[in-house]
Amino acid sequence: MALDDQKSVFKFVGTRPDRPDGLDKVTGRAKFGADVSAAGMLHGAILRSPHAHARIVKIDASKAQAHPDVKAVVTRADFSDKVPFKPGLAGEFWNVLENVMAGDKALYDGHAVAAVAATSALAARDALKLIEVDYEVLPHVTDVDKAMAADAPVIREGAADYSVPEGLHPNVVRYHESGHGDVEAGFGEADLVVEDSFTTEATHQGYIEPHACLAQLGADGKGELWCTTQGHWIAQKTCAALLGIETAQLRVTASEIGGGFGGKTTVFIEPVALALSRKANRPVKIVMSRSEVFRATGPTSSASMDVKIGMKKDGSITAAQGIFRLQGGAFPGAPGDMTAMCAFAPYNLTNVRQVGYDVMANRPKQAAYRAPGAPMGAFAVESVLDELCNQLGLDPVEVRLKNAAHDGSKASYGPTYDQIGLVKTLEEAKAHPHYAAPLKPGQGRGISCGFWFNHGGETSVSLALSEDGSAQLMVGTPDIGGSRASMALMAAEVLGIPYENIRVTVADTATLGYNDVSHGSRVTYASGLATIKAARHAVERLCARAAAKWGIPEDAVKWEDGCAVPSGPNAGDFDPLPLADITANMGATGGPISGHFEATPEGAGVSFGTHIVDAEVDPETGKTAITRYTVIQDAGKAIHPAYVEGQYQGGAAQGIGWALNEEYIYGEDGRLQNSIFLDYRIPVASDLPMIDTVIVEVPNPGHPFGVRGVGETGIVPPLAAIANAVSNAAGVRMRDLPMSPPRILAALKARDG
Amino acid sequence: MALDDQKSVFKFVGTRPDRPDGLDKVTGRAKFGADVSAAGMLHGAILRSPHAHARIVKIDASKAQAHPDVKAVVTRADFSDKVPFKPGLAGEFWNVLENVMAGDKALYDGHAVAAVAATSALAARDALKLIEVDYEVLPHVTDVDKAMAADAPVIREGAADYSVPEGLHPNVVRYHESGHGDVEAGFGEADLVVEDSFTTEATHQGYIEPHACLAQLGADGKGELWCTTQGHWIAQKTCAALLGIETAQLRVTASEIGGGFGGKTTVFIEPVALALSRKANRPVKIVMSRSEVFRATGPTSSASMDVKIGMKKDGSITAAQGIFRLQGGAFPGAPGDMTAMCAFAPYNLTNVRQVGYDVMANRPKQAAYRAPGAPMGAFAVESVLDELCNQLGLDPVEVRLKNAAHDGSKASYGPTYDQIGLVKTLEEAKAHPHYAAPLKPGQGRGISCGFWFNHGGETSVSLALSEDGSAQLMVGTPDIGGSRASMALMAAEVLGIPYENIRVTVADTATLGYNDVSHGSRVTYASGLATIKAARHAVERLCARAAAKWGIPEDAVKWEDGCAVPSGPNAGDFDPLPLADITANMGATGGPISGHFEATPEGAGVSFGTHIVDAEVDPETGKTAITRYTVIQDAGKAIHPAYVEGQYQGGAAQGIGWALNEEYIYGEDGRLQNSIFLDYRIPVASDLPMIDTVIVEVPNPGHPFGVRGVGETGIVPPLAAIANAVSNAAGVRMRDLPMSPPRILAALKARDG
Repeated sequence: MALDDQKSVFKFVGTRPDRPDGLDKVTGRAKFGADVSAAGMLHGAILRSPHAHARIVKIDASKAQAHPDVKAVVTRADFSDKVPFKPGLAGEFWNVLENVMAGDKALYDGHAVAAVAATSALAARDALKLIEVDYEVLPHVTDVDKAMAADAPVIREGAADYSVPEGLHPNVVRYHESGHGDVEAGFGEADLVVEDSFTTEATHQGYIEPHACLAQLGADGKGELWCTTQGHWIAQKTCAALLGIETAQLRVTASEIGGGFGGKTTVFIEPVALALSRKANRPVKIVMSRSEVFRATGPTSSASMDVKIGMKKDGSITAAQGIFRLQGGAFPGAPGDMTAMCAFAPYNLTNVRQVGYDVMANRPKQAAYRAPGAPMGAFAVESVLDELCNQLGLDPVEVRLKNAAHDGSKASYGPTYDQIGLVKTLEEAKAHPHYAAPLKPGQGRGISCGFWFNHGGETSVSLALSEDGSAQLMVGTPDIGGSRASMALMAAEVLGIPYENIRVTVADTATLGYNDVSHGSRVTYASGLATIKAARHAVERLCARAAAKWGIPEDAVKWEDGCAVPSGPNAGDFDPLPLADITANMGATGGPISGHFEATPEGAGVSFGTHIVDAEVDPETGKTAITRYTVIQDAGKAIHPAYVEGQYQGGAAQGIGWALNEEYIYGEDGRLQNSIFLDYRIPVASDLPMIDTVIVEVPNPGHPFGVRGVGETGIVPPLAAIANAVSNAAGVRMRDLPMSPPRILAALKARDG
Repeated sequence: MALDDQKSVFKFVGTRPDRPDGLDKVTGRAKFGADVSAAGMLHGAILRSPHAHARIVKIDASKAQAHPDVKAVVTRADFSDKVPFKPGLAGEFWNVLENVMAGDKALYDGHAVAAVAATSALAARDALKLIEVDYEVLPHVTDVDKAMAADAPVIREGAADYSVPEGLHPNVVRYHESGHGDVEAGFGEADLVVEDSFTTEATHQGYIEPHACLAQLGADGKGELWCTTQGHWIAQKTCAALLGIETAQLRVTASEIGGGFGGKTTVFIEPVALALSRKANRPVKIVMSRSEVFRATGPTSSASMDVKIGMKKDGSITAAQGIFRLQGGAFPGAPGDMTAMCAFAPYNLTNVRQVGYDVMANRPKQAAYRAPGAPMGAFAVESVLDELCNQLGLDPVEVRLKNAAHDGSKASYGPTYDQIGLVKTLEEAKAHPHYAAPLKPGQGRGISCGFWFNHGGETSVSLALSEDGSAQLMVGTPDIGGSRASMALMAAEVLGIPYENIRVTVADTATLGYNDVSHGSRVTYASGLATIKAARHAVERLCARAAAKWGIPEDAVKWEDGCAVPSGPNAGDFDPLPLADITANMGATGGPISGHFEATPEGAGVSFGTHIVDAEVDPETGKTAITRYTVIQDAGKAIHPAYVEGQYQGGAAQGIGWALNEEYIYGEDGRLQNSIFLDYRIPVASDLPMIDTVIVEVPNPGHPFGVRGVGETGIVPPLAAIANAVSNAAGVRMRDLPMSPPRILAALKARDG
């Protein structure tokens, strides 16, 4: 779509109306994953491996099965045996199945090995104790570097795909290498080369709502599933494959969702509940405990990274190189490729080379957590840039502006950028009062840029008009960030009717065409684009009705301000005909008026942000306070600015937790030691400053209103920006996350010799 | 659509697979109107007038409101005051509102005057007793002839529309007159003229499931409604209007339905539950008792009719005239026009005249009950025809064949028939073993023809394909007779995939475009046509993907047996590409594949049937036994023959009840005296013979597969056929229904002087 197709003057878009689901959510009427029940419902519970790596020799469930309250017990044998094993990510369903219910081996502490359905949740949990599992405990590994070492235990032979060079340990399952130019020559041209190594620990998305579902599957292969998910079509086809039924015969409804951030893009308990239901012939509800969420759902990858950058005295980068090893749990999927591709993406580099590894270890299967992989790489790269600026005495914003990617520059990962907004975010940073504000003693300031691709994905949207002129919009992407409001604004803009006249429904899988998950910052972009196109389709039909009524050609009718208006040679021949006047008679003039759109839009438009952070380190306790935080990010076009700001603030808040405190702590025995919120410390309100936001709007040429996704980029810069601020405050380079008080104290001690 | 567009060789259509909702229904898993609950739900109950006609002077609900278990009380003031009063049927919403909750007057025994919501159903019913209503009792009338008399009390001034000639009582609210030729001249040409008068009483549809709903309406004007209904879009827009909210903001879901037969095409308790919910700010459930169903939902009209027919000795009809007075309760809507239009429709008449009256009386607002109005008229007309045959010594089938309407003949109500099947049904009757079977002493045989228009109506259907090649079909017409199975068969036929691979969902109002009610025998015709068109739309898109893959023009691809196949100059260039191979990659080849269709199809195709009945009358008790029954009816094309047969058998069974036993009995006080099934006698299994069926298939040119509706015509002939059989068995003409034992005994007594 050419830029001149874009609308640039808006009546509804850019306003901040109340969200349509607001009253439901403040009154408690909104229904989340655990909020529904069914007559005759059973409660499911899952038995989990206490071992990080163990062969399952035998499962004896006879005692559990004999318990009067227990109506079904399932193990791996109760799932489809037709799901093919394939190496790498390609074997997605097999990996999901193996994660949902262990086969020959338990691969991590918390891995499901059996499940029961009983007449109460208590009875189900009790019955788990009656299941006897004989394990043959195997050596385990949870650290990414150790998992790549020659003596590491092999998690699963044959899991590596074609991309992995020979000679690597079988735990390395995917390999990525890209770049351009001659990095060695580039380093030779540099006045200063800094090379350093960094690590990050796995963190959890920490969504408020644990996984929960209610499932029912009949002997006829027809089922219903209610669950908290970012994508019910993915849940539908995955569960159908794992249960060996037809996709269309499983109807999946997405509940309201208490957060996901990428962690609810796959299934965990849902196929188990369906298998239990099929066996018990009763509906089955499963609700995870927080401990289960930590132990057995997807945290981020942990990472080990080496970055080397050469710079001239004027701040220009001569070469950049990064090696990024990501540990993604006991299955393929750690986004080493994404880390590598994003790490240098903000910069216009002549010589760049990046390598990414996907490494398996005895941990839960990683899941996305906004911009998967990107925050770790940015942490390493932007830390080295900060060190270069410090050593060369250069301004960190100026250096980034000098090297910034711009319209038409070649991205480090291959493509050429279209219209992008990085330079604008840096200029806004430079001009922002925050950047000029004086720092107090003991405080440090950090800067970081961040990049994310954004995603389009398969999308189906329909819109139906009512006789009274109100409209019903059907989308298939669960509302994880106010998207009902954004969609209604876009539909209102096209139809020319008030925002309040539109009801947006997240349709279930049985009532709309396929929709990809609410991920990849795709919802406002792709569902929004589809909403605009579906609304335009309805407008075409409205215009056709007016043309028929007036007896003029369809192309002689245009749509203005909610009315059909005669145009061209017929201009002024008839009074404008409002939408509600057309819909009032639609039954008699040709039938119901709806609009539809299905596509996989591919112009998502990359996104950049620049963060400025001030931090203060307490040298006595090692505790870090974030004293000021400013997010500047390109939204393309902010449909509902309040929700854009919310995404910016949320990314920063989560980044603060990731940078300072959050981490998965494993014991020598391979067991997770901090699987509750008391031990896994996420930021609370008192940990956070007000997070300021600046919305930059450089329109995305791939969207009719210029929208870029905003959900993920906001978590890319924080780790780096905070690490730079803390390093500058503490006077010592912090190379390992989280920068928890013990680590800070150790670093201060090392600094002081 | 030309006939040559019709498919005539079928792979799936015409087979008899299990219904998709079968397991749900036999296991009790299917959810009907009363089967859902909500957290914090209240129970509603409705206070009903004990008077047939009374002015409501004052309602004092203070004591009820003070009851600790009561959370809301509503009266008419809690509904919208913006619904305009209009004369005749046009003021539909006003009439519904007035019926749902009385305004200035209670108009019939059982008319709602107030409602409460309380924490239990028992508390709600108890609280009704605390509401004090001052009534000024007015004179009432419940009989149709008396309601038209000059001295009848006026139900509502100004209710009559433009059609009513001057000088008629204000209770006559609509008038219909049609016909052609010169009836007086025709009677002059006759060898025999028979003129007679007939009456029928109101009967109830007798659906198993009482009305039930769960409603929730918030202060933000957004609501949800779950109810048992034949049409949730009608419920949506009606409730929205009555509550003064926007149509799109009310999401209505149709439950499984335990019968409707026309009686669930409007709302009764639903707006009341919504009003209570809005006031209490809690979900409210209302479930009617059987007594409330009888007293306050729609029975059929009662009727008083005069028919005069002239015939030559050879059996040819020279003229026919009918006057049909239908009483439809205290609101406009009695289908006197339909009765008139249908009464002579089976015959090709030179001189015909019919008059229909819509008369108000102090009874509940009538509702449709299959082919509304037609059975009464057929009873009168076919009785006179039988009498003519008896007196002239002619065979009743031969006489009907001689006068039968045929392709191209002019219908008594105006239009010219397209391709129709009446002659074929009569030929099948003549050839049927039943017609030749000897009768025992005391038995009589009756014949009748029947006609119904059938209806198209607004229809929206969507179909979405899954990656594994299964399909999800979204229709908006509640499944009242196995339509999920029929729709899946039609979709399978077009897509070329197995019936079992298709899931049919009755979408709610928020997830599909507008759909008219499941009435007018329109579902298999109109939703079926839309299903075929939506599936063809999906096939077009499938062919386009194949064309893109093969690099050939889209019109060089045809669809055969579930595969895209190159055709024309490209025939044989590529292997057939099965549907599932195209859908497997649909995301990457252009996006999700769906098909859509919205229209108001207008080629429903009229339908005719001929019934043969044998009856035996016990002269001691007056009890009638139906000893043999054969239904012969034109289905156009039977999509799922078992469900067509079911419709035929159901119509006959209900007709047997209507003819022999069912009736509304009012006391002098205007109160209904038999409002439970113990006193209102519907046929039970032991009252019925096996009902034989013959499916005639004369394709409807207005449907791609030739379908005609079959749901209503089956109830048109039974009253007449049974009356003729009983009259012939008893040797006395039965002119008043029901032919209950007391009436039979009285007739036998009259016969014997």
